[in-house]
Amino acid sequence: MRVGFIGLGAMGAPMAHNLHKAGLLAAVYNRTMSRAMVFASEHEGLRVAAMHDDLASCTVVVLCVSADADVLKMVDGLAPHLTEGSVVVDCSTVAAETAREAARRLGERGIGFVDAPVSGGTEGATKGTLSVMVGADEAHLATVMPVLQAMGSRIVHMGPVGAGQATKAANQIAVAGVDQAVSESLAFAKAHGLDLDKVIEALAGGAAGSWFLENRGPNMRDMKFPLGFKVTLHAKDLEICRRMAADFDVKLPLVEMTLLHYSRLVGQGFGEEDVSSLFRLKNAMFKATGD
Amino acid sequence: MRVGFIGLGAMGAPMAHNLHKAGLLAAVYNRTMSRAMVFASEHEGLRVAAMHDDLASCTVVVLCVSADADVLKMVDGLAPHLTEGSVVVDCSTVAAETAREAARRLGERGIGFVDAPVSGGTEGATKGTLSVMVGADEAHLATVMPVLQAMGSRIVHMGPVGAGQATKAANQIAVAGVDQAVSESLAFAKAHGLDLDKVIEALAGGAAGSWFLENRGPNMRDMKFPLGFKVTLHAKDLEICRRMAADFDVKLPLVEMTLLHYSRLVGQGFGEEDVSSLFRLKNAMFKATGD
Repeated sequence: MRVGFIGLGAMGAPMAHNLHKAGLLAAVYNRTMSRAMVFASEHEGLRVAAMHDDLASCTVVVLCVSADADVLKMVDGLAPHLTEGSVVVDCSTVAAETAREAARRLGERGIGFVDAPVSGGTEGATKGTLSVMVGADEAHLATVMPVLQAMGSRIVHMGPVGAGQATKAANQIAVAGVDQAVSESLAFAKAHGLDLDKVIEALAGGAAGSWFLENRGPNMRDMKFPLGFKVTLHAKDLEICRRMAADFDVKLPLVEMTLLHYSRLVGQGFGEEDVSSLFRLKNAMFKATGD
Repeated sequence: MRVGFIGLGAMGAPMAHNLHKAGLLAAVYNRTMSRAMVFASEHEGLRVAAMHDDLASCTVVVLCVSADADVLKMVDGLAPHLTEGSVVVDCSTVAAETAREAARRLGERGIGFVDAPVSGGTEGATKGTLSVMVGADEAHLATVMPVLQAMGSRIVHMGPVGAGQATKAANQIAVAGVDQAVSESLAFAKAHGLDLDKVIEALAGGAAGSWFLENRGPNMRDMKFPLGFKVTLHAKDLEICRRMAADFDVKLPLVEMTLLHYSRLVGQGFGEEDVSSLFRLKNAMFKATGD
C-alpha cells in the first residue's frame, strides 16, 4: 500500500509521522510547500508532491485540512488522477453532507471515500492514540484499516459515509456542554471560597464526574489554559454542528450559548487558548458584581 | 454515642438503616409518625420520638429533610433540649447560608452543627457508599465521623460550616450541565440516524466522556428514565443554586436554562422521572421539524 498525505498541520504532521513509522507513507502534500519539504527532509524516502498528479500512484490518500471547501477542492483535484479502487480518507472535521458529497464525486470514478474524523488532540496524534469515528462502506474500511490503525488506537465504525462526521459533531456538542458544566460549577465554587482541588476530588467520583473535570479542572484552578484544544477550532466545529442542526430547523441551546461565549473569548484575545478558558467568562460574572 | 435521626424519606430511611446496622442509632423521628413506627418495628431497640424532648438524650442528631425552612424549624425545636457538646448533622441539601444560620442558633447553646449533604442517590444511601461533602469545625467533624462513615464511603471535609452545601450546589450545577451535554449530543446523534450504543462507545473514552454519558446515555437510547434522581428534586436544588448565585447578582446560564427545561418537563407530566428525561425535550426539538 502506498499512502499519500495532504495537510501537515498541527494534527496532520504527527499523524503522517506515524504512517511513516508504520512504513506506509509514500508522499506528502501541503498547501505551504516549504512545510512539506521540511517534513520530507526529516522522513526518509518520501516524495513531496507538487499537487494532484504526484499522488496518482497512491492507493490511499489521507486528507487532514481545515474546512469543508478545502476537502471538496482536494477531492476534485485528486479525482482525475487516482486509479479506480483507490480510497480517500478524510480526517478533517467537516459536515456529514460534505462527506457524502465527496463520496459522490469520487464514486463516479470508482474511487472510495471514508470519513474518519479524529479526537484526542495533538497529544493523541503524536502518540497514535486517536479515537477515529468512521463513516464508510465495509469494503473501503477494510482497505484503509491499516492506515487508521497506524494513527489511532480506537477505531469505531459508525455507519455509512457521513456517520463519522455526524458522530464527531455529537462529540463536539458534548464537549461544549461539559466545558460549560465544569467551568460554571467551578466558578460558582470559587466564588464561594471553596478549595477547587477538594471540589474536583469531591465531584469526580459521582454523577457530576467527567473527563473534563479531572483533566481541565486544574487549568481553571490555576487560571492557565494551555492547549489542549483551541477555542477557535472548537468554534469552527460548533459552526458545523449549528449547520447540521439547522438542516432540521433546530437551534441547539448549548451550541448557540457556547458559540456566543467563544466569540466573547476571541474578542478578548483568548481565542488561541484551550477551550477550558471558558472559565474566564464564568469567573468574571462573579468578579464583576461579587465580593 | 446515641444518634437520633429525623426524616425517614427515600434517602433518610436507608441512611438510618445503616446507622442502626453500625449500632449507633437510638431514636427516630418523622413528620408522618406512622413511617417512624414502621421503621422502628423493623429495627430492634429503637425509640420513636414524638418530638424534641424525646431526642434530648442523643449526642448526635442527623437531619435529612426537604427544605431550608424545615432545617431551621427542626434546629429551633431541638436547641432547647440537646445537651451542650452534642452535634446536629444536616444531610439535607439547603443553601450554605441556611447552614451558617443553623450553626449560629445552635452555637449560642454550645451545640455543634455540621452540614453534610450527600450525593450518590438512593442506591448509594442503601449501600452506604454516599459521597459526603462536609462543612464543619475540626472538633465537630471528629465527633460525628463514625456517623458519617456509617452512611458514606467518601467523606470530604470542604471547609467551615456552609462549605459542604456550597460544594453540593456546585455538584448540582455540574450535573445540570452534563445532563444538558449528554442529552443534546445524543438527540443530535439520533436525529442523524446514528446507533446510540456506538456513539456512547465512541465518545466515552475521550474529552466528551462523563459518568452521565455512560450511566444515563442508555436511558436515552431506550427512551426510559427510571430513578435515579428525580427532575423535581434536582429543580429544587437548582433553585438553591440560583439563590446562592443571586447573592453575587449573578444568573448562571446552565442553571437558568435547566430550570426552564425542568419546568417544561414537569408541565408535561415527567417531573417524577430521572433527570435524564431532559432527552425528551432535546429529542422533541428534532422531531417537531425534522425528518
